[in-house]
Amino acid sequence: MTTQTTLAAVADFHSVVQSRRSVRRYEPDFRIPREELETIIERAAKAAPSSSNMQPWRFLVVTDPELKQRMLPVANNQQQVVNASAVLVLLADKQMYEKADEIYGAARDAGYMTEELSRQFAENSRRTYSSIPAERLLEIIVFDAGLVAMQLMLQARAMGYDTVPMGGYNREALRELLAIPDRYHPTILLPIGKAAVPGHPTARLPISGLTYWNTIE
Amino acid sequence: MTTQTTLAAVADFHSVVQSRRSVRRYEPDFRIPREELETIIERAAKAAPSSSNMQPWRFLVVTDPELKQRMLPVANNQQQVVNASAVLVLLADKQMYEKADEIYGAARDAGYMTEELSRQFAENSRRTYSSIPAERLLEIIVFDAGLVAMQLMLQARAMGYDTVPMGGYNREALRELLAIPDRYHPTILLPIGKAAVPGHPTARLPISGLTYWNTIE
Repeated sequence: MTTQTTLAAVADFHSVVQSRRSVRRYEPDFRIPREELETIIERAAKAAPSSSNMQPWRFLVVTDPELKQRMLPVANNQQQVVNASAVLVLLADKQMYEKADEIYGAARDAGYMTEELSRQFAENSRRTYSSIPAERLLEIIVFDAGLVAMQLMLQARAMGYDTVPMGGYNREALRELLAIPDRYHPTILLPIGKAAVPGHPTARLPISGLTYWNTIE
Repeated sequence: MTTQTTLAAVADFHSVVQSRRSVRRYEPDFRIPREELETIIERAAKAAPSSSNMQPWRFLVVTDPELKQRMLPVANNQQQVVNASAVLVLLADKQMYEKADEIYGAARDAGYMTEELSRQFAENSRRTYSSIPAERLLEIIVFDAGLVAMQLMLQARAMGYDTVPMGGYNREALRELLAIPDRYHPTILLPIGKAAVPGHPTARLPISGLTYWNTIE
């Protein structure tokens, strides 16, 4: 076994981060227990920040073998949607502000803020996000989905599993196949499984060409 | 000192992830050496995946005290843009496909792919991303910016520093102040510094209400 699949329960941060690669070949018979998938999702969702703490991410986890098979043409016949143990469809909720009362009520219950402040925050969030332009709202929730996606990939890696973020698929066909309501905007598909073939490193741009100090020349 | 500022060089993955909080109060006189800021950015940019490996993130790092002061009104007078050691303006490049030759050329030079494949990938990327609808392109690069943003926050934390992702600021005023060209889309401001007051935990939605298995009921 390679270091890709043998990380300890207490994993070194840099080892986890640096060993994450996009993996496209998975052991087709390996099934990640549902409890472990839940742990990955829970840890990621609790660790990622989001705009006004609205937590706009929703997770549609496809584990049913027949359903994964039907995702194959939707995903341009990329075999990882069948062979990975699960395909997590990462959705961004365009009406995430409807949970503002629940979020800030929980903050009040946990003693993080007063009753008055929690009501004020919830009202502000509801009012702000329900009235900003649709394209700005989409940008916010898509960015936040990116934050939790990175956490999901790292949390899976810390448990010895691999992932591959997939943006190239037929959005309309996916929406139809999985009966995804309009309010949920699909971002990536994220297969999660046990690698059969390790991922390969990718070429990175020199950081000096991407970084500006105080001014863009 | 708290565990928030005393993580070892070899840091435990879960400690890094769980100790990250949004920190809004910074030691105003503390300066992170430029080399360390470069290390944070380099590690993050090399570790985050992106659509077709286009690496659309650009980093405008504001460390000049006068310039930080002038960012204050742009950032709704949130003092962290002045007191943090640096404010990283995370930009998404709408013409990221112009680096396709450089990216896939480097992949060829590193022996990751053949000359023919590298030219094909570069050409496909350039053609695809230069012709897709503007709003779809924006969604891709904003999502990828979210991926690298999460890495930046974690890498800073692993080095004992703190951050706070800020989406609420005046985009037009920022663009004007920093003379940001049109091709770069500003996502978040990310102050990075030494915490003066620890961040507080936030309330999280129960994961069961965010997760669906095979079907959205």
